[in-house]
Amino acid sequence: MANLFFIPQYIISGENAMKMSTEYMKSFGEKALIVTDDVMVKLGNVKKLTDALDEISVSYVIYSGINSEPTHTMIDEGVEIYKKEGCDFLIGIGGGSPLDSMKAIGAVVTNGGSITEYMGKKIEHKLPPTCAIPTTAGTGSEATKVSIITNTNTGVKMLLNDPKLMANLAVVDPTFTVTVPPGVTAATGVDALTHAIEAYTSLKAFSMSDIYALSAVKRIFDNIYEVYTNGSNVEARREMAIAALEAGIAFSNASVTIVHGMSRPIGALFHVPHGLSNAMLLDVCLDYLKPGAVARLNQLAKTIGVYRPGMTPDEGADAFVVATKALLRTLNIKTPEEFGIDKEEFFNQIPKMAEDALISGSPLNTRRTPNKDDIMNLYKKLWDK
Amino acid sequence: MANLFFIPQYIISGENAMKMSTEYMKSFGEKALIVTDDVMVKLGNVKKLTDALDEISVSYVIYSGINSEPTHTMIDEGVEIYKKEGCDFLIGIGGGSPLDSMKAIGAVVTNGGSITEYMGKKIEHKLPPTCAIPTTAGTGSEATKVSIITNTNTGVKMLLNDPKLMANLAVVDPTFTVTVPPGVTAATGVDALTHAIEAYTSLKAFSMSDIYALSAVKRIFDNIYEVYTNGSNVEARREMAIAALEAGIAFSNASVTIVHGMSRPIGALFHVPHGLSNAMLLDVCLDYLKPGAVARLNQLAKTIGVYRPGMTPDEGADAFVVATKALLRTLNIKTPEEFGIDKEEFFNQIPKMAEDALISGSPLNTRRTPNKDDIMNLYKKLWDK
Ligand SMILES: NC(=O)c1ccc[n+]([C@@H]2O[C@H](COP(=O)([O-])OP(=O)(O)OC[C@H]3O[C@@H](n4cnc5c(N)ncnc54)[C@H](O)[C@@H]3O)[C@@H](O)[C@H]2O)c1
Ligand SMILES: NC(=O)c1ccc[n+]([C@@H]2O[C@H](COP(=O)([O-])OP(=O)(O)OC[C@H]3O[C@@H](n4cnc5c(N)ncnc54)[C@H](O)[C@@H]3O)[C@@H](O)[C@H]2O)c1
Ligand SMILES: [Fe+2]
Ligand SMILES: [Fe+2]
Repeated sequence: MANLFFIPQYIISGENAMKMSTEYMKSFGEKALIVTDDVMVKLGNVKKLTDALDEISVSYVIYSGINSEPTHTMIDEGVEIYKKEGCDFLIGIGGGSPLDSMKAIGAVVTNGGSITEYMGKKIEHKLPPTCAIPTTAGTGSEATKVSIITNTNTGVKMLLNDPKLMANLAVVDPTFTVTVPPGVTAATGVDALTHAIEAYTSLKAFSMSDIYALSAVKRIFDNIYEVYTNGSNVEARREMAIAALEAGIAFSNASVTIVHGMSRPIGALFHVPHGLSNAMLLDVCLDYLKPGAVARLNQLAKTIGVYRPGMTPDEGADAFVVATKALLRTLNIKTPEEFGIDKEEFFNQIPKMAEDALISGSPLNTRRTPNKDDIMNLYKKLWDK
Repeated sequence: MANLFFIPQYIISGENAMKMSTEYMKSFGEKALIVTDDVMVKLGNVKKLTDALDEISVSYVIYSGINSEPTHTMIDEGVEIYKKEGCDFLIGIGGGSPLDSMKAIGAVVTNGGSITEYMGKKIEHKLPPTCAIPTTAGTGSEATKVSIITNTNTGVKMLLNDPKLMANLAVVDPTFTVTVPPGVTAATGVDALTHAIEAYTSLKAFSMSDIYALSAVKRIFDNIYEVYTNGSNVEARREMAIAALEAGIAFSNASVTIVHGMSRPIGALFHVPHGLSNAMLLDVCLDYLKPGAVARLNQLAKTIGVYRPGMTPDEGADAFVVATKALLRTLNIKTPEEFGIDKEEFFNQIPKMAEDALISGSPLNTRRTPNKDDIMNLYKKLWDK
């Protein structure tokens, strides 16, 4: 079988990546819409960007309205500003939320309509040139053909997945991530870990996605606890930023599976940040998928160094699952209860969540095919671990 | 420091890759110049391609004049046919020679002049769309921004290196490589191995190039002897095709170093096929560069599994060098003498070769900086190993 491998046209990584990237931005257009949030403005990250744009005489307008995981109304607003201000390209700077928003705004700018109509549809026309500058080490959105926008009318976190949503330029400067607070560091890091594990155990995995997935899993196991407890360790931040990029590349090409499928409905209905809802689900889902993915989980055990000579593949797979659960515990991931979700309300929503999870298509890439009952049972398990 | 990472826009790999790629080719233009050699025509590979083009109603002209490593006159001829026939995009199918030729033809088509004027120059204008279909597992030209063309007037194998030379689409179907004869299999496989080792030990190496380099080295150590002795092992051929692609990506982004720098002059003056001249040089060059690259060679020893617990980094590095030399011996790589090079003639050319090697720039990326004397000494060592 043949596989397509597809990443941003240019990826610039490392300290000073923004400096090196201005020559590309200059070729993108004359006036950028900068899509971001207020934290980026306050931290001075937007200023760093606008200083760089000033130097190359590129104009810009700042839209800093992405102050939570993005909703369709935020996209509407961004599109309006883009048009009114006569912008001709896009720069997203921030976590996955501003990056995803930038892509969605770009899609509507050239394809019209409302973003609420885009779920499951092919995007016809090329977006304006897009540049993605991540400041969390998590989503990998800078290198994925994915954008996730919540339709607040239907309560669905829409998965938009189209090659046209791939940024033209990804600028990964790990120094931006040093200011991320511990809770967000842990959740976004587990998001990246989940991307890598799901990409590696996906039915659509292939050699080119595998090398990124394995590399990301190793880097994350080696560094996530360090960045969580010692956020100013630039070397560890660098490893995590690269890992998130790698994990994004891996899953953009090989797809995610059951965890992400089940995670989006929790995010949409209970406003759990994306990384955290993945983190809550990861352990029960690993137990579920293990029987179908023994060889792959065994390889992951070798990659992170918990496989011991003499282990059977099954024991190796278990060793990886155990190591992952232990890692999650050290990161103090909140349970749904601790996050403040009402149990009854959650149980009432389980049928809708299971349905939305299946509709997204992601669960079907799992090496053990879940039906609606399986997924409902897994949601229940979140409460009696 | 920041680094640019840059690969073909689309990479399609695996069996049936050509079938999956036609939708992209169709978007490239209406009439393709197919750049190839007579062996490809005879083996029926060109027919497979033209059948696929017929199916999508794309016209084509075949230029099969690349029957040795490419010279500037072959490029002239290709450009003439492209223009006369009104082509609007390019497909290269074959080993590195047709692929490099396709890129060079494309460059001249949109930038004018003669390819002999392109060495060391920036390419101004975009090439027509280019599609590269490798049939050897070696050069990685399908995924590099490099083209190597011999100027027969000056006796220089010109290294052209420009982002515009990156193909838009790489189609890597390992089944094409099954017919490669053992000698070419060994030489092209060592070319890929050399790309990976040089990229990994290059001063320009960085995280994104490293993962490809390491992956390629491992795949090659695991499979090259098998494909050399049992060419019909499709699984091993598949691993080698992916390895060559990975190694190409690695060195296109991190550069090659001393081996390739010294290899091109031997190729230009003594008509030694590229993979073979690399293979002849690899062991003496590893001995030379080792003092500057101990940690990296030690990591390579771990990657291929010859590092033993308790080894010092220096012992690890030695273990990798020893393993590489042993591998080369099993592949029966010819010495310059066995290839039929006249020793006196070779020694007369050493000063010119050392100069041409340095001018190419590649040797300066080595982790131990060579001067002209060092390089002349290494050329001499080829004869008294
Ligand atoms: N496109 C994709 O491929 C993809 C993949 C996974 C998730 N997602 C989506 O991405 C979104 C989540 O992105 P995220 O996890 O990066 O969170 P986010 O962008 O929502 O940011 C989380 C919080 O961290 C803050 N923050 C960001 N960078 C900071 C920094 N450098 N210093 C201090 N604070 C900083 C933000 O201001 C925000 O308050 C979700 O909507 C999720 O669905 C997209
Ligand atoms: N662009 C780059 O990045 C790059 C890198 C390294 C080398 N090169 C260049 O590539 C050229 C060498 O390419 P190569 O080593 O692939 O050799 P090649 O293209 O010259 O092919 C070698 C021989 O193998 C035959 N052959 C090719 N595919 C075959 C198949 N599937 N079955 C049977 N026979 C087959 C060819 O017809 C030819 O006779 C040199 O000019 C070298 O300098 C380029
Ligand atoms: Fe995610
Ligand atoms: Fe080469």
